[in-house]
Amino acid sequence: MKKILAQLAKGEITQKEAEDALRLLAIEEIENMAQLDISRELRKGIPEIVYGQSKTVAMILAIIRRVLLQNSVIIISRVKKPDALEIMNEIGSEFKVISSKHSNTLVIKRNDHIPNKNTGVVGIISAGTSDIPIADEARIVAETMGCSVFTTFDVGVAGIHRLFPALKKMIEQEVDVLVVVAGMEGALPSVITGLVDLPVIGVPTSTGYGYGGKGIGALTTMLQSCALGLTVVNIDNGIAAGATAALIAKRVKK
Amino acid sequence: MKKILAQLAKGEITQKEAEDALRLLAIEEIENMAQLDISRELRKGIPEIVYGQSKTVAMILAIIRRVLLQNSVIIISRVKKPDALEIMNEIGSEFKVISSKHSNTLVIKRNDHIPNKNTGVVGIISAGTSDIPIADEARIVAETMGCSVFTTFDVGVAGIHRLFPALKKMIEQEVDVLVVVAGMEGALPSVITGLVDLPVIGVPTSTGYGYGGKGIGALTTMLQSCALGLTVVNIDNGIAAGATAALIAKRVKK
Amino acid sequence: MKKILAQLAKGEITQKEAEDALRLLAIEEIENMAQLDISRELRKGIPEIVYGQSKTVAMILAIIRRVLLQNSVIIISRVKKPDALEIMNEIGSEFKVISSKHSNTLVIKRNDHIPNKNTGVVGIISAGTSDIPIADEARIVAETMGCSVFTTFDVGVAGIHRLFPALKKMIEQEVDVLVVVAGMEGALPSVITGLVDLPVIGVPTSTGYGYGGKGIGALTTMLQSCALGLTVVNIDNGIAAGATAALIAKRVKK
Amino acid sequence: MKKILAQLAKGEITQKEAEDALRLLAIEEIENMAQLDISRELRKGIPEIVYGQSKTVAMILAIIRRVLLQNSVIIISRVKKPDALEIMNEIGSEFKVISSKHSNTLVIKRNDHIPNKNTGVVGIISAGTSDIPIADEARIVAETMGCSVFTTFDVGVAGIHRLFPALKKMIEQEVDVLVVVAGMEGALPSVITGLVDLPVIGVPTSTGYGYGGKGIGALTTMLQSCALGLTVVNIDNGIAAGATAALIAKRVKK
Amino acid sequence: MKKILAQLAKGEITQKEAEDALRLLAIEEIENMAQLDISRELRKGIPEIVYGQSKTVAMILAIIRRVLLQNSVIIISRVKKPDALEIMNEIGSEFKVISSKHSNTLVIKRNDHIPNKNTGVVGIISAGTSDIPIADEARIVAETMGCSVFTTFDVGVAGIHRLFPALKKMIEQEVDVLVVVAGMEGALPSVITGLVDLPVIGVPTSTGYGYGGKGIGALTTMLQSCALGLTVVNIDNGIAAGATAALIAKRVKK
Amino acid sequence: MKKILAQLAKGEITQKEAEDALRLLAIEEIENMAQLDISRELRKGIPEIVYGQSKTVAMILAIIRRVLLQNSVIIISRVKKPDALEIMNEIGSEFKVISSKHSNTLVIKRNDHIPNKNTGVVGIISAGTSDIPIADEARIVAETMGCSVFTTFDVGVAGIHRLFPALKKMIEQEVDVLVVVAGMEGALPSVITGLVDLPVIGVPTSTGYGYGGKGIGALTTMLQSCALGLTVVNIDNGIAAGATAALIAKRVKK
Amino acid sequence: MKKILAQLAKGEITQKEAEDALRLLAIEEIENMAQLDISRELRKGIPEIVYGQSKTVAMILAIIRRVLLQNSVIIISRVKKPDALEIMNEIGSEFKVISSKHSNTLVIKRNDHIPNKNTGVVGIISAGTSDIPIADEARIVAETMGCSVFTTFDVGVAGIHRLFPALKKMIEQEVDVLVVVAGMEGALPSVITGLVDLPVIGVPTSTGYGYGGKGIGALTTMLQSCALGLTVVNIDNGIAAGATAALIAKRVKK
Amino acid sequence: MKKILAQLAKGEITQKEAEDALRLLAIEEIENMAQLDISRELRKGIPEIVYGQSKTVAMILAIIRRVLLQNSVIIISRVKKPDALEIMNEIGSEFKVISSKHSNTLVIKRNDHIPNKNTGVVGIISAGTSDIPIADEARIVAETMGCSVFTTFDVGVAGIHRLFPALKKMIEQEVDVLVVVAGMEGALPSVITGLVDLPVIGVPTSTGYGYGGKGIGALTTMLQSCALGLTVVNIDNGIAAGATAALIAKRVKK
Repeated sequence: MKKILAQLAKGEITQKEAEDALRLLAIEEIENMAQLDISRELRKGIPEIVYGQSKTVAMILAIIRRVLLQNSVIIISRVKKPDALEIMNEIGSEFKVISSKHSNTLVIKRNDHIPNKNTGVVGIISAGTSDIPIADEARIVAETMGCSVFTTFDVGVAGIHRLFPALKKMIEQEVDVLVVVAGMEGALPSVITGLVDLPVIGVPTSTGYGYGGKGIGALTTMLQSCALGLTVVNIDNGIAAGATAALIAKRVKK
Repeated sequence: MKKILAQLAKGEITQKEAEDALRLLAIEEIENMAQLDISRELRKGIPEIVYGQSKTVAMILAIIRRVLLQNSVIIISRVKKPDALEIMNEIGSEFKVISSKHSNTLVIKRNDHIPNKNTGVVGIISAGTSDIPIADEARIVAETMGCSVFTTFDVGVAGIHRLFPALKKMIEQEVDVLVVVAGMEGALPSVITGLVDLPVIGVPTSTGYGYGGKGIGALTTMLQSCALGLTVVNIDNGIAAGATAALIAKRVKK
Repeated sequence: MKKILAQLAKGEITQKEAEDALRLLAIEEIENMAQLDISRELRKGIPEIVYGQSKTVAMILAIIRRVLLQNSVIIISRVKKPDALEIMNEIGSEFKVISSKHSNTLVIKRNDHIPNKNTGVVGIISAGTSDIPIADEARIVAETMGCSVFTTFDVGVAGIHRLFPALKKMIEQEVDVLVVVAGMEGALPSVITGLVDLPVIGVPTSTGYGYGGKGIGALTTMLQSCALGLTVVNIDNGIAAGATAALIAKRVKK
Repeated sequence: MKKILAQLAKGEITQKEAEDALRLLAIEEIENMAQLDISRELRKGIPEIVYGQSKTVAMILAIIRRVLLQNSVIIISRVKKPDALEIMNEIGSEFKVISSKHSNTLVIKRNDHIPNKNTGVVGIISAGTSDIPIADEARIVAETMGCSVFTTFDVGVAGIHRLFPALKKMIEQEVDVLVVVAGMEGALPSVITGLVDLPVIGVPTSTGYGYGGKGIGALTTMLQSCALGLTVVNIDNGIAAGATAALIAKRVKK
Repeated sequence: MKKILAQLAKGEITQKEAEDALRLLAIEEIENMAQLDISRELRKGIPEIVYGQSKTVAMILAIIRRVLLQNSVIIISRVKKPDALEIMNEIGSEFKVISSKHSNTLVIKRNDHIPNKNTGVVGIISAGTSDIPIADEARIVAETMGCSVFTTFDVGVAGIHRLFPALKKMIEQEVDVLVVVAGMEGALPSVITGLVDLPVIGVPTSTGYGYGGKGIGALTTMLQSCALGLTVVNIDNGIAAGATAALIAKRVKK
Repeated sequence: MKKILAQLAKGEITQKEAEDALRLLAIEEIENMAQLDISRELRKGIPEIVYGQSKTVAMILAIIRRVLLQNSVIIISRVKKPDALEIMNEIGSEFKVISSKHSNTLVIKRNDHIPNKNTGVVGIISAGTSDIPIADEARIVAETMGCSVFTTFDVGVAGIHRLFPALKKMIEQEVDVLVVVAGMEGALPSVITGLVDLPVIGVPTSTGYGYGGKGIGALTTMLQSCALGLTVVNIDNGIAAGATAALIAKRVKK
Repeated sequence: MKKILAQLAKGEITQKEAEDALRLLAIEEIENMAQLDISRELRKGIPEIVYGQSKTVAMILAIIRRVLLQNSVIIISRVKKPDALEIMNEIGSEFKVISSKHSNTLVIKRNDHIPNKNTGVVGIISAGTSDIPIADEARIVAETMGCSVFTTFDVGVAGIHRLFPALKKMIEQEVDVLVVVAGMEGALPSVITGLVDLPVIGVPTSTGYGYGGKGIGALTTMLQSCALGLTVVNIDNGIAAGATAALIAKRVKK
Repeated sequence: MKKILAQLAKGEITQKEAEDALRLLAIEEIENMAQLDISRELRKGIPEIVYGQSKTVAMILAIIRRVLLQNSVIIISRVKKPDALEIMNEIGSEFKVISSKHSNTLVIKRNDHIPNKNTGVVGIISAGTSDIPIADEARIVAETMGCSVFTTFDVGVAGIHRLFPALKKMIEQEVDVLVVVAGMEGALPSVITGLVDLPVIGVPTSTGYGYGGKGIGALTTMLQSCALGLTVVNIDNGIAAGATAALIAKRVKK
């Protein structure tokens, strides 16, 4: 680039020529950056995750096959029930498929996939029945990234007194980070953050109706929380919570 | 009215005349209703309450004098500090004036005012320093309506462990209803409602910044709360909370 | 805890050991709290209430059976019509089931359930046809908590002149608290609060379209109301209104 | 235009030339429209109204002098107090100036201004002290447009019982249309619309705080109103309400 | 009431007795007001209008029969297509039924219904195909109230040049008021208000997608309009626009 | 007009007559404007575009036939799949029909339609699978307006490294303007605007869920972008982006 | 990178070493990109623009001097009046300074700055007095980027009839693109886009009060506009509009 | 509790007595929990942090002295400049005070305070000048909690090319977690999360104006981000980001 500018300064090239040269140069330099992403799974340890709800079976199969050329694992979230069956049939023994009954998630692994090991411990707590699918997405992502995951999915069903034994067990299991999933008023992440000295990731869920419904109330509560140690992901984004928790746990184990 | 319609039916009057007659009749009948409000203080036991912030000293004095012709007490809320002094000077010994240091509220009573007695017990709890003025407005209204009021204004300043002795004391004092004032994430009313078998009135306050700030987060949390027994008034509306609490307490004592 | 801190101060244990000990201690102390909730129905008199809409028949049956081990009554709200039939068939004579035709609510009682008696009088008023299901939820909760409930579900259908005889009858019945349910502009709770010296709980409903539709307009009107004595629950939350009204009425009768 | 297109079709002009010709033609035809607005005051009877708050005294004076070349009257709304004095001094006896003490409005008339007469009767009702300036803007516009205006500015200060005599008087004065100004919950226009058989224009004002404050609650209530006969202008837009009311009244008198 | 207060003052009755007496008195006085609404159709000339969408055929038939005992006409809006057929079958020759093909509206008249006559002229203009049902609701209400109605439902389909002949024709027909229905950006009411010296009622419709969609953009534009003479009803509220327009036209003809 | 005013001044006509004359004159002058729009396709080069989703097959066919009397091409967007087939069957060989498989768009041309040529080069880039239909609408409009269009519809599917070769190719193709379509956080238009010296039109799409979902997040990001050279159209409005891009490209080629 | 992966495959390095190597490699490759931005002014022709309002004089001076080491021109927008004077004093003859009286903008050029020439023609139209500062920012940016700029800043002050001569003149001046600035209901950009075959950039301004005030109404109108050829920037963002207009004009002249 | 219930079952106590006993028991058990918070600083390592802006100097001094009885350090955020001086004067040598010039924050330590050591490494990156105070709050909290903190506060001032050397240095410094602070469109946290395999905490700041201004746009972008590994705190909440980052880093070092 300096050469181009020098040539321009000496008048060896016109400004138009310099501009064209710079423009191409810029693009070429940027192109080097294109290689970076190829080994994303290796570097970041986060598998490719594809949102399945708005895609046809054919589209999903095409994506799976293309991604598994370079990566050894892929996650498809929110697959419609019948689509999941069709996909599993189509794949047959081509790849290993794990299907979750709590959330509509598929994990598809190449047969040569070697799971990460020993990358830390993640705890996941959810408040109500409707929060389970979101909590389960977090679990699947964190496990696929190699973490041990401890879950308590029924705090709140029979009363808050289930919280304390669960918290106790999680601390005994030495979890490195907690994912807490809650809808309605969304106070649970705030309460837990006040009780433990661990980072907590709050996931608001789209339950609740009326003013502040569809997760807005839960999101607001978590963002306004006075409890230090709590960060938040978007409504229903169990995927992001699971991936971040695994990144934290992995860092701890390093 | 039947007469008018009959006359119309018989053709003794035109439709135009009937319409005019009906219109006047409607107004006259409604006018009877006008008398109702005169003895509002007596019937409802709620004193006249005037929002002082946007009024001049002259306007406030005029209102005080007009209202105290028929009622024996009036409350002026959110009076600017210097205006409060000026008003008190002007009034001199004409009426009894009580001024609150926590909120900018004046209570002005005719000298022949006989306070209500034995109209129940109200408890008021606030979470943070910024919530005190709102909590204090609730206290003043409830006391003026004749209630015994117990307050704890510093729960949350030095930690939630202050909550439990306060709650214990309030139950021992046999409070009939609790007003709980909180800003930020506004979870305190929800927590307290889950612990006691009393009606709780939540008052969100306009503290907090960012998304859900200015009380919106606290309001949302309280409206989305799963704790049964909690109702809500608008942001910073300590007046309404105090008046409703006193109505409940008064009903209990009856 | 003092002992641990003392040991730490004297150097008998390391800070790491002290931290671990404190963490466990904290959890153990908190665990004591877990017992509290077991007798919640007894203490608060509010039965377990489960939102049925997003649950399968199997899930609802499981919850009913688990809860009725410890409690004597449970309410399932917003059950889909066919699900309600299936649940009633499944339960047979195992428990007593009461089904409401106005709202899709089931009340299920153990055969040894002894209703609360003499816990006060609640009045419920609704404005339009669409508000009836919400008003009916409030009625069911208040009755299950032992209150006498007087209802007027058709004020507004044939004109506001139905309001006054209804109000008169309610005052003669000596209701302790009023629940007023209204959608659209939601002015009815405000009007009634101005006329009676009783606490009023406003319930906005999700009727109305356009700007301020889905209950937002009604909620806003009730929160902005100048009428003192009115508190509010979230849009369509008849359950919370009924439970709070019953708590107030119960307190009055005490 | 047909000519141009014909020439194009015959190939006498190129497409480029036709396009240029059409473009100029379009502009020329539109330009004829420019004359229309000159006699707007005459045709519509609505005087020029300028928002003074964000303008300097110099700017306002320039506008006054330019407009009064063609029109015989101009209104300046929301003039800052000291600016109003300065403007009146500057104008001296050049024009007639009328200043309102309730709102910060100036009406400036050429000395040869002949007021419209006999253009109908407008009634204006406001609920609270803070609503007076907005109600007064409506009054000034309607009067300047030649209407007789009857006002009641203190309904709500001493109770709703002032409403009925005021309504009665307005019906006796045979008002053709009502402007009703209200903040907070904004229910007054809806109540009045239900009682009279006149068109009502609701003006929400920016009073009230918390959720639905700054006039949003009042606007929502008026838009959600079930009372037929009510239309609405934007928050604090007394000007628009006054002008529309005068148009209606003028139409009636025609 | 004075008597009661006097007795209280002399000590002839206790305060409790006085309160009870006052409460009953208040209710009795208010009850007089109940008669007012009975002759609403006569006084206001606005027929009963019922929102049919959320009601069953049985409910609608019941309402029709009850209302037509006292009123001679009723309008049912937004009736589902098959429900409309069923209702018309059920009614047979019991009443006269008029059904609109543009909107799903039924007008049902007693056989002795005598239409209002000579109550003014209303013009209705709509911009796009999707706005027709709303415009048609306005037409039906205004016609049922006795107005002559002139409509242009396809301005905007083939370009704004259809606006001007339509406006010209409406002015020649001497319309007293214009209803202008528009979705998307909703600028048409503002444009028309700037061109005519008639009151204009803007009706935003719930067309448009993205930010400002569902009518919010159109509502905002109309409320922010600088054109004086324009008032607004809520999104899709053709009913309110038609009724208000008819009230204005009726006033003009008086 | 001057004549009318002069006659008025001399008293030859009454004010009423002058007003009537002016009103008619105004309308007549405005009517001249009506001719302008007839040749809109020719002047602006933008074909008539009709939103098909809410229209029946019969309505769409009627519009096609009416518009193709004066214009040579029409676009129908968002046609339901089965409707598209029916429309194509109905039209048969009457007109030429082009149907897009990516978006549900039909382009219908008269057989004598002569496409614009050489009107510049437009580049279109989209980020994810769900953005393709919107990007495709932009392509169809720009191509119908005569532009050469280069598209990259899968940037983001397999990683951002696809962006740079695409950008390089587009600069080599000398595109005059870029349309960039993105949902979720919507950062792609901002990134690209920072890298090229071309005008960029951002199109937010209604993907994404939770807070900021349905395109609001993407719209916000694009409006808040610091990258100069980026303008925005509404959520999912590929039509507007394509038309504006073509106008820019056409201007460049001129 | 291939080498590292190969070494890893052969076991010559551990996965940990490979990861570290890859991480560093990634950063190094990205670092190449760092050079790109240095010559941004040259490539994009957009000068550095700094928002002055929240910065001290010292900060602004430091930024000016640092930027002018590499660039030949910098723009400081929204400088407080007294700060502007102080900055100009400080700079003295070090650089050339141009100050705008309409907006609080400073353009500072190195003495060796050679302006771009012949980069196209931009037209800027604003509606009201309050829109001038924003329109002026657009002018300054476009002129600094070398465009000829034609402005009309008073359309709307004395009526829409000023629009047509202005538009005519702009088309005669052969402007390549129009920037249209408007607050309140913001309809002007939409109207103009419908009349010309040029790309139009709409700039909503933060005028207007009440619902849709502070520019939200204008933004909504422009985004919902049916007029094809209109794109939008954020409220008050004259800078972005000016820069994009200049990019378009520059492209045209190329 | 079992004893009480048994006594009740045997009839040895009345239900009223059992209820009273249970209520007291509940409170007593909860009271044990009160001790927990006393050693919060020790357990969680998060110092007491007090928001100074809305407090007087006297209030702040009182809080400092009370908290430092039990804790060894306290942070006062957002202290007004003159208040900070006054507080430092008052405290003199009573405690150690550290004042930050970037944000208005005071750290006050008892003289016997022993800082935590070796609790991990935190990196903090901010985009613009206005983001520095928020980034600095995060730094102070993390350092007070014992972390090594590396900061880059001027990425974005002179261009994105400063990002890459900064990122490289941070990875060489082996930071465990990144805090990224950004206003306007807020894309920086998303970009960085895509480049590193570390957990990233995004902090939106309240810069930016127009639609999505005051930090809403930045918050939306971060919540909608596709980059996995990113969690978010509320707008301007540098305190929460710093505390969470330190908790993560501390966990890593354990």
